[in-house]
Amino acid sequence: MSSMTGKVLQLSIFGQSHSRGIGCVLDGLPAGIPIDLERLQKFMARRAPGTHTINTPRKEADTLEVLGGLSDGVTCGAPFAAIIYNTNTRSSDYQEIAQKPRPGHADFTAAIRYGNWNDSAGGGHFSGRLTAPLTAAGGLALQALTQMGIRVQAHITHIGNERDKASDQAIMSNEAPYTIPVDLLETIAQHEAELGIAMANEQAALRAREAILQAASEKDSVGGMIECIAWGMPAGVGDPIFDGIENRIARISFGIPAVRGIEFGYGMQASRLRGSEHNDPFGIQDKEVLPLTNFAGGILGGITTGAPIVWRLAIKPTPSIAQEQRTVDMATMSPAHLRIQGRHDPCIVPRAVPVVEAAGALALLDALLEDGCYKLPASRPYRAASEV
Amino acid sequence: MSSMTGKVLQLSIFGQSHSRGIGCVLDGLPAGIPIDLERLQKFMARRAPGTHTINTPRKEADTLEVLGGLSDGVTCGAPFAAIIYNTNTRSSDYQEIAQKPRPGHADFTAAIRYGNWNDSAGGGHFSGRLTAPLTAAGGLALQALTQMGIRVQAHITHIGNERDKASDQAIMSNEAPYTIPVDLLETIAQHEAELGIAMANEQAALRAREAILQAASEKDSVGGMIECIAWGMPAGVGDPIFDGIENRIARISFGIPAVRGIEFGYGMQASRLRGSEHNDPFGIQDKEVLPLTNFAGGILGGITTGAPIVWRLAIKPTPSIAQEQRTVDMATMSPAHLRIQGRHDPCIVPRAVPVVEAAGALALLDALLEDGCYKLPASRPYRAASEV
Amino acid sequence: MSSMTGKVLQLSIFGQSHSRGIGCVLDGLPAGIPIDLERLQKFMARRAPGTHTINTPRKEADTLEVLGGLSDGVTCGAPFAAIIYNTNTRSSDYQEIAQKPRPGHADFTAAIRYGNWNDSAGGGHFSGRLTAPLTAAGGLALQALTQMGIRVQAHITHIGNERDKASDQAIMSNEAPYTIPVDLLETIAQHEAELGIAMANEQAALRAREAILQAASEKDSVGGMIECIAWGMPAGVGDPIFDGIENRIARISFGIPAVRGIEFGYGMQASRLRGSEHNDPFGIQDKEVLPLTNFAGGILGGITTGAPIVWRLAIKPTPSIAQEQRTVDMATMSPAHLRIQGRHDPCIVPRAVPVVEAAGALALLDALLEDGCYKLPASRPYRAASEV
Amino acid sequence: MSSMTGKVLQLSIFGQSHSRGIGCVLDGLPAGIPIDLERLQKFMARRAPGTHTINTPRKEADTLEVLGGLSDGVTCGAPFAAIIYNTNTRSSDYQEIAQKPRPGHADFTAAIRYGNWNDSAGGGHFSGRLTAPLTAAGGLALQALTQMGIRVQAHITHIGNERDKASDQAIMSNEAPYTIPVDLLETIAQHEAELGIAMANEQAALRAREAILQAASEKDSVGGMIECIAWGMPAGVGDPIFDGIENRIARISFGIPAVRGIEFGYGMQASRLRGSEHNDPFGIQDKEVLPLTNFAGGILGGITTGAPIVWRLAIKPTPSIAQEQRTVDMATMSPAHLRIQGRHDPCIVPRAVPVVEAAGALALLDALLEDGCYKLPASRPYRAASEV
Repeated sequence: MSSMTGKVLQLSIFGQSHSRGIGCVLDGLPAGIPIDLERLQKFMARRAPGTHTINTPRKEADTLEVLGGLSDGVTCGAPFAAIIYNTNTRSSDYQEIAQKPRPGHADFTAAIRYGNWNDSAGGGHFSGRLTAPLTAAGGLALQALTQMGIRVQAHITHIGNERDKASDQAIMSNEAPYTIPVDLLETIAQHEAELGIAMANEQAALRAREAILQAASEKDSVGGMIECIAWGMPAGVGDPIFDGIENRIARISFGIPAVRGIEFGYGMQASRLRGSEHNDPFGIQDKEVLPLTNFAGGILGGITTGAPIVWRLAIKPTPSIAQEQRTVDMATMSPAHLRIQGRHDPCIVPRAVPVVEAAGALALLDALLEDGCYKLPASRPYRAASEV
Repeated sequence: MSSMTGKVLQLSIFGQSHSRGIGCVLDGLPAGIPIDLERLQKFMARRAPGTHTINTPRKEADTLEVLGGLSDGVTCGAPFAAIIYNTNTRSSDYQEIAQKPRPGHADFTAAIRYGNWNDSAGGGHFSGRLTAPLTAAGGLALQALTQMGIRVQAHITHIGNERDKASDQAIMSNEAPYTIPVDLLETIAQHEAELGIAMANEQAALRAREAILQAASEKDSVGGMIECIAWGMPAGVGDPIFDGIENRIARISFGIPAVRGIEFGYGMQASRLRGSEHNDPFGIQDKEVLPLTNFAGGILGGITTGAPIVWRLAIKPTPSIAQEQRTVDMATMSPAHLRIQGRHDPCIVPRAVPVVEAAGALALLDALLEDGCYKLPASRPYRAASEV
Repeated sequence: MSSMTGKVLQLSIFGQSHSRGIGCVLDGLPAGIPIDLERLQKFMARRAPGTHTINTPRKEADTLEVLGGLSDGVTCGAPFAAIIYNTNTRSSDYQEIAQKPRPGHADFTAAIRYGNWNDSAGGGHFSGRLTAPLTAAGGLALQALTQMGIRVQAHITHIGNERDKASDQAIMSNEAPYTIPVDLLETIAQHEAELGIAMANEQAALRAREAILQAASEKDSVGGMIECIAWGMPAGVGDPIFDGIENRIARISFGIPAVRGIEFGYGMQASRLRGSEHNDPFGIQDKEVLPLTNFAGGILGGITTGAPIVWRLAIKPTPSIAQEQRTVDMATMSPAHLRIQGRHDPCIVPRAVPVVEAAGALALLDALLEDGCYKLPASRPYRAASEV
Repeated sequence: MSSMTGKVLQLSIFGQSHSRGIGCVLDGLPAGIPIDLERLQKFMARRAPGTHTINTPRKEADTLEVLGGLSDGVTCGAPFAAIIYNTNTRSSDYQEIAQKPRPGHADFTAAIRYGNWNDSAGGGHFSGRLTAPLTAAGGLALQALTQMGIRVQAHITHIGNERDKASDQAIMSNEAPYTIPVDLLETIAQHEAELGIAMANEQAALRAREAILQAASEKDSVGGMIECIAWGMPAGVGDPIFDGIENRIARISFGIPAVRGIEFGYGMQASRLRGSEHNDPFGIQDKEVLPLTNFAGGILGGITTGAPIVWRLAIKPTPSIAQEQRTVDMATMSPAHLRIQGRHDPCIVPRAVPVVEAAGALALLDALLEDGCYKLPASRPYRAASEV
């Protein structure tokens, strides 16, 4: 009731950080979509721990074992289900936190919520590790969107105070036509692969990286912001009031631990503008009506305009820091101090980039499916048994 | 969107008959319920194939691998997730049916529904094998209900024309007080274990068994009916209109393949009665108001009366029969004949008994939880780390 | 949480028997469907009280006031909302039952469920009167189905022991091609209009009518059974496991008070058959594959086969009877007797016929919409303002 | 499917700006909560148009007609349903926009989404007018929360560039104990009543008011930001992953037209902080564990901490401005200009304040109910009929 979401495309996420395994079920994917599992695994590798020096040293191959939903590598209408075994768990790191909740973590609230029966090892079901199955499911959704020519890509706008002005200016191309800035996206992808930071400007990426290492060296952590853009969404998708594109993306995106805020288009800054500044005039291009600017981030009344969907998520600094912090000993109900051991990212933002894409893709695909706007694959020809 | 159900207690079922594995996620179980996995496995064994000569020779240990949801053997608030690997698959048996749909099976409708991309091996996601994870989830629900003193047990009222009159008369104890007929239930359980037939009357069980073997020897199959009763449900659980106890049990029970009808209390026969015959007068026992008879099957206005919940499910004869049947060759679009090979139960009813209990338990527990009527476990005392 | 249902087509039912009004919201109807409100009102008139001598003397015009959802008589994408004011209420009839629950009614269970805060006048939210907005919503769904050539019509198979053998034999045309028996359906409609009994055989209808009047004269009531058939559903609609056509129809149909059981196709009797008798062989007609017989009632694996969908509902005898009945005085917690005054139908079956059609239509339309199988109307051409 | 939301407490919103009426259904409210309809009407009056010179001159009494859900002024378990008739409609103002979509409005996207069958008069179902029934439903939720000692109040942090520093500093009392700043809240309420601006600092309110009038005089509009705080939520409410307090509040709050972003606690600014700055240490007060500061806005892992819940919504400038704007004539598919007539607020922020409270209250109450944390009212004693 808490780890399931979606209406026509329904997702279930399960597992705990140190349980036998984690996984996802994605029910409602149209049949007939070829799934490239290698590409899916590569997508997940962007989120996986241990790939860069700026990440936690906990290493998990995060190898996806697909249990169902595919037949000969193509979606078959049955729910997609996949699991990842947890292999590299060190629960001993967490014996203390069952007693002394970590500031900024869900240890305390989970204990109250579940009568202290919660599994606190590694953060249990609240661990960022649960974003692995979310990423897997979203990776499938992304492949389904690709079939329709929709591309979803996120990048980091800032980490702490290190801002990527290049992305700011170039990516949220605010004027029609809204062509995909392929070269820029490739540059970002390259920086992510090489530097671990999905920014357009190499210098900014290096400074962001430095900020993370600096925080780590001070036994501290740092937050940041991720912007995500979906190009190619047709106009007319989404629903008024409670199932608008914003509601849908927000609902899933707050499922990513550490997200503290979400905004669409011009977002929070819209609150400072005049209507004459914020309104996007309509025009005609290639015989299609479309907004000529994109302050609205591709959404009006919860429904897509045909311009790119643009949203940003604020990610808080990792709460697990090595500094001594004040907390409470729940067993003795007395003030206590805590020095977190464990293995933690000094900044979760870089690894969250594909997770943000995944969450967005799931929301967009669900809307497309519910509104009957997803272009279904052609039927498979019947073959004689001898050919099978 | 099709294999998920429930509101506060949400269930997801996944996997195909011949995919890597099958499983379930059960989200919303209260934390603090001790789970006896051995008992769960025994419950599942009642459904498992290959245990009696009247069952399919396909043998599956159906060993449940729990991935999450428990901590030290107790529910921890995280979704319960468990899988079963498929080990004994012979897809070669099914090459023909991808081309020639089996009468009475979902081969044809699945092919149309999913553009022929469906996984037809072993019936794919439509296989009766999917009742294994349903049974696992329901087995958990049953253990949760047991904590509240609620007992759910089903038995067979007839197979083909072999009727168990003993059960008919003794079990649906139609008069208050509604004490659990423990001895009778044990007799039924014993007959199920020894004869493979959950009936009260041994002679009837033997005749039913004979009817199954007779059908098998004629390359045919036979149907039957299962009655399920829940004792101990408190009065006042359930909701009007669309979330009554009937709606909830029906919604899940039709998830059991082969169910063709469901009725509550006096059921279909109520349509032939007068109001003066069918109405249950109210009375007082042990300072509690309760209906003195139970024609209503423990439900009025969708809400429990305090009397036992009684329902019956009609199970159709197994459609997979070894006789030659008429069908169509989908590749050539010409009439064809089919002789099903595979390994099939000549009667699915005996193995469906625990599945019916499972489905009912899931529906009842969801209602209890949503209505705030489930008695939550006490909190776990905090322990110092040194004690952990 | 109890009076809302549906996934893509969502329905909310509200109001109490003696509150200011009752109504419905139907969200998710495709835009562009012309709605004939006069036809809708006529459809509702079939359910309205007071039209035949066999019905309750409570007269309600049941005039629907449409608040939203239409624009120029066509669905506009906004939720359809309509209300009916309650005009003819005599709450004085019900002062006693707040204290002495009526046998067979929800008075007792509602009091327990809602801490005795429930509105007991006229049965409150549990009243059969709530089927009026259900019928309104279903009437809309029927008009939407008509656009696709789908016809849903119900008839009475028996009242008490008076059986309509003509319907039995003629209507459930068990062999392909499944042409709509137009003449027979018109005869049934005529008998419903003239005699108040939707049966094919006039003599049976007269006998059924007599049985109702006889029960009434004895201060008693009588039950019956309704069969409903949907012609024209395309093959391949519905979903496996929990969202099959059966699950969907059952979920909504148990929202009709007094329904005690539901069965599909050969239904309960399937439990007595052999597989060789029950299986429908596939064949080819007009270049389409279809089942040549229809024991399955048009559904396999929860998905439509292309043959008519056939289901039956058992309706219990009206619990409100004028005979003295045993109950309990909840204020004094002592045994009591009750003689129900009020105005009640001696048989609810005749008026339930359109309600059954409505419930079925809602379920089928929801499945069509969710599966992307509903044929959406063409767009409305843009007109210059001067033409508007 | 779009205008319904919630899990245990389900809400349906219906109607169009110029249809016969608008309304709401709120299903799942516990029975036994006394509802003060006068107080509800006063709450709605804060949102109603025409009360201040800074608002639209469209006057609507917004008188709520309750159709069901109450019995003797107390919730009775049946869905609460209420309607408001639209009285002051001038559809002639909108003939042009059916042809020429207004920039920043849903005219264009609704036309695409609904095949141009949408009701465009007054914005149809997308109109801000639909926040009236949302406010009604939320007003009920607020009264239900009050029974538990929970108080939800919002205020404006800025309009355009006019910031209320007094609120900033005083209200988000960032340190335990989190006592309700009653005096300050009353001051804000007084400013709202007298000046139309819910700010703590009178000078700021006057400047904000001036900014609105200035924008209006320039045929323009202006946006702003609203902060909402819920005091008294017990710790341990909410659910991980997709049903956290953030997900729930966001899902409903994006149902308020013009919301462009939402943030919790320190929100977007958290992305610039170090973990050592952002983490709230735990402490003990009155024998309860609680966070000593409240950067997290009262939520960790989607679950309440016991500290006040704090969130902010960015509201865009009203898109309807009287300046000439560029758009497209959909009938001729040629560029066009539009000068919006109609009656529009130059700033929607002041009237949105109670709507934000309403949306939040609905989300919080749903979470309390689903998690079994809402303290249910005591049962009503049974009374003899003679006393009724």
